[in-house]
Amino acid sequence: MVPHLTTALTGPLLELERRFLEAETTIERWLRGQWLEHSPPFYASVDLRNAGFKLAPVDTNLFPGGFNNLNPAFLPLSVQAAQSAIEKICPEAKNLLLIPENHTRNQFYLMNVARLAALLRHTGLNVRIGSLLPEVTMPTTLTLSDGQTLTLEPLKRLGPGGRRLGLHDFDPCAILLNNDLSAGVPDIIKDLHEQFLIPPLHAGWHVRRKSRHFTAYNEVALAFAQEIGIDTWLINPEFEVCGQINFHERAGEECLEAQVDTLLYRIRAKYRDHGIDAEPFVIVKADAGTYGMGIMTVKDASEVKDLNRKQRNKMAVVKEGLQVTEVMIQEGVPTVETVAAGTAEPVVYMIDRYVVGGFYRVNTQRGIDENLNAPGMRFEPLAFETGCTLPDNTQAPDAPPNRFYAYGVVARLALLAAALELERSETT
Amino acid sequence: MVPHLTTALTGPLLELERRFLEAETTIERWLRGQWLEHSPPFYASVDLRNAGFKLAPVDTNLFPGGFNNLNPAFLPLSVQAAQSAIEKICPEAKNLLLIPENHTRNQFYLMNVARLAALLRHTGLNVRIGSLLPEVTMPTTLTLSDGQTLTLEPLKRLGPGGRRLGLHDFDPCAILLNNDLSAGVPDIIKDLHEQFLIPPLHAGWHVRRKSRHFTAYNEVALAFAQEIGIDTWLINPEFEVCGQINFHERAGEECLEAQVDTLLYRIRAKYRDHGIDAEPFVIVKADAGTYGMGIMTVKDASEVKDLNRKQRNKMAVVKEGLQVTEVMIQEGVPTVETVAAGTAEPVVYMIDRYVVGGFYRVNTQRGIDENLNAPGMRFEPLAFETGCTLPDNTQAPDAPPNRFYAYGVVARLALLAAALELERSETT
Repeated sequence: MVPHLTTALTGPLLELERRFLEAETTIERWLRGQWLEHSPPFYASVDLRNAGFKLAPVDTNLFPGGFNNLNPAFLPLSVQAAQSAIEKICPEAKNLLLIPENHTRNQFYLMNVARLAALLRHTGLNVRIGSLLPEVTMPTTLTLSDGQTLTLEPLKRLGPGGRRLGLHDFDPCAILLNNDLSAGVPDIIKDLHEQFLIPPLHAGWHVRRKSRHFTAYNEVALAFAQEIGIDTWLINPEFEVCGQINFHERAGEECLEAQVDTLLYRIRAKYRDHGIDAEPFVIVKADAGTYGMGIMTVKDASEVKDLNRKQRNKMAVVKEGLQVTEVMIQEGVPTVETVAAGTAEPVVYMIDRYVVGGFYRVNTQRGIDENLNAPGMRFEPLAFETGCTLPDNTQAPDAPPNRFYAYGVVARLALLAAALELERSETT
Repeated sequence: MVPHLTTALTGPLLELERRFLEAETTIERWLRGQWLEHSPPFYASVDLRNAGFKLAPVDTNLFPGGFNNLNPAFLPLSVQAAQSAIEKICPEAKNLLLIPENHTRNQFYLMNVARLAALLRHTGLNVRIGSLLPEVTMPTTLTLSDGQTLTLEPLKRLGPGGRRLGLHDFDPCAILLNNDLSAGVPDIIKDLHEQFLIPPLHAGWHVRRKSRHFTAYNEVALAFAQEIGIDTWLINPEFEVCGQINFHERAGEECLEAQVDTLLYRIRAKYRDHGIDAEPFVIVKADAGTYGMGIMTVKDASEVKDLNRKQRNKMAVVKEGLQVTEVMIQEGVPTVETVAAGTAEPVVYMIDRYVVGGFYRVNTQRGIDENLNAPGMRFEPLAFETGCTLPDNTQAPDAPPNRFYAYGVVARLALLAAALELERSETT
């Protein structure tokens, strides 16, 4: 099942898909060249928006949950990609420690952890799960709703002077974080010796900024667009930043208002140039936020001036109760994909430099211009029915294998941007 | 659809599959370690025989045909594996020249060539096909039975002094041989400069010997069996060699007779030890032969003494009319797999170190102790319905994903043997 597009695709996006199809060899070769220069993150997921006139990433997650939502038929791809990734990072690895988020009551998330652990075991690693939860003081086995079990164990420093991190009787050579470090780096993970931490600590949300990612993406999109001869705007969401916001104290509102206005002005001009008959909007998001928290849709600068207390409270705090002081204002990309009257956006998963699958996030309660990954709101995952690596130029440019190929290409551009972003933040 | 096993698997093989399942992590890690020491061939296919009491490779092909027989659902695995292989061998490659066999009238083979070219194009290579046929003096487009077209072009030396091999207006950095060089290395392929030839020339049947492959396999099987604690014989077909045979002149018959007798004696002892109630047999094959030519089933040494003229003629000559002088006598491994009353044997395909799929060769006209890849005889391919990389220990050891995993493991042992074999023949 593939979502319907609410508009007939005869405009720019169909052209974009056609161009991707024609240029497949060039695209794959160009990406291969990029991976010679830049190391992809171990894994990532990218939220995309397909507006019919534009196809762009809106968020790149370096600690992806949701592996359980991928089509099981494509699991061998994940295993193969993970084999390749492990071989590059720590070929001699025998034991791998997986550190998940602390949501032990979120069954969906726990199934993701179980899926990830299973994947990694198939690559030939002993995988055990170390919990950051203080209440996990001994091995604790959780039974998931599908009957699987998952054992969380307390983390423990090992070796002389506690140089290494592990579990009781388990000294891993690699540690895979599936915890985004929103609350900062816990002491127990600091100062590790001779252990591979994947991804590196500076990928955590305690230092990561969406705006740095999209600055890198902007460069990648420019270079790519030039390579295959397309208009960059078709794949690049514009953005602005405000650095010193305090929603509670209403500080920095002028910056926000001005930047929203500037961005809306630019989008309006682009819509005019491209003959797009739609109302521009922007998304205001915490620059260091995740989990769909601290996000609002804005269609006019006046809206951010007159935030009521409830709206301010919503924007002021993100995951782990962190205060929001830096804000990104991103061009809103509406989605034209719907599934059974729900609004849908594609999420593409990658391991190493390979696209290993994806799913649609479907939300029946949200509009085409809203964040679908809303806290406390259910979304339905709908696994992609075909892969993202086998475009078929005997079919129409928007036939499923070709649309998914386009998604896989744009997602890999975001992956490359993440590689650049991590290279740069390593030295800061 | 998965072939039926004609015997209920309750004997040693079920034990073997169970052991593979239990030891998956150890197996994958052991293989990962081996690939750090030894480079896998670019691609290979391995013919296996599942006897119910034994699971062994009987032939390893370094110029595999039959990619068109793989399940299309698993094609993304081939693309991903080929991306990984290309990245290691020639990451900067832009153009790849594929040199196929000369069977332009074999539609099945041509579909294999088309499939291979398509796979490689998806990795981001310009792929063109260069023919060794003298009658191809200009680009010649063939239309395949499924409507695809395939263009063969004449090979041409390029550059100063003809240092490189290519086509008109096409200078490839890599050349992939899908031609096994049975007739020796054509002059036009000799003395290439700064071009990657894949696989290397010494993988061709003009120098390759089955017995060298199985000598290496014997070592690999021993080390592997020790690693996971199994009896090597369960995965290792025994063999003997006779070096100076002339079937026409009836020279070397004594050697053949003696070696057949020795091997049958050893197999009989093994059958006794393992409580196997079956009639031992051996397969006599040309040590440098392929295409199922020059092969006979022998159950008693007297059979090779009294070969009639027809049998001698059949054994004396292999592909490209080459005379057979070296012969391998290999332990016959009966097959217990049948599909709709046909005898079946699995063929596993690998690209780089990854299992990318497989199919059953099904032959309704041959017995369980005969070569199924018989010249001029049709076999039906039956693609594996699940992958070979996702064993499921919640299912029975002989459930399809687990049986296919076992096939994938043994096939990779043969792949590793091929890696050793190529390393050694490089220096000879």
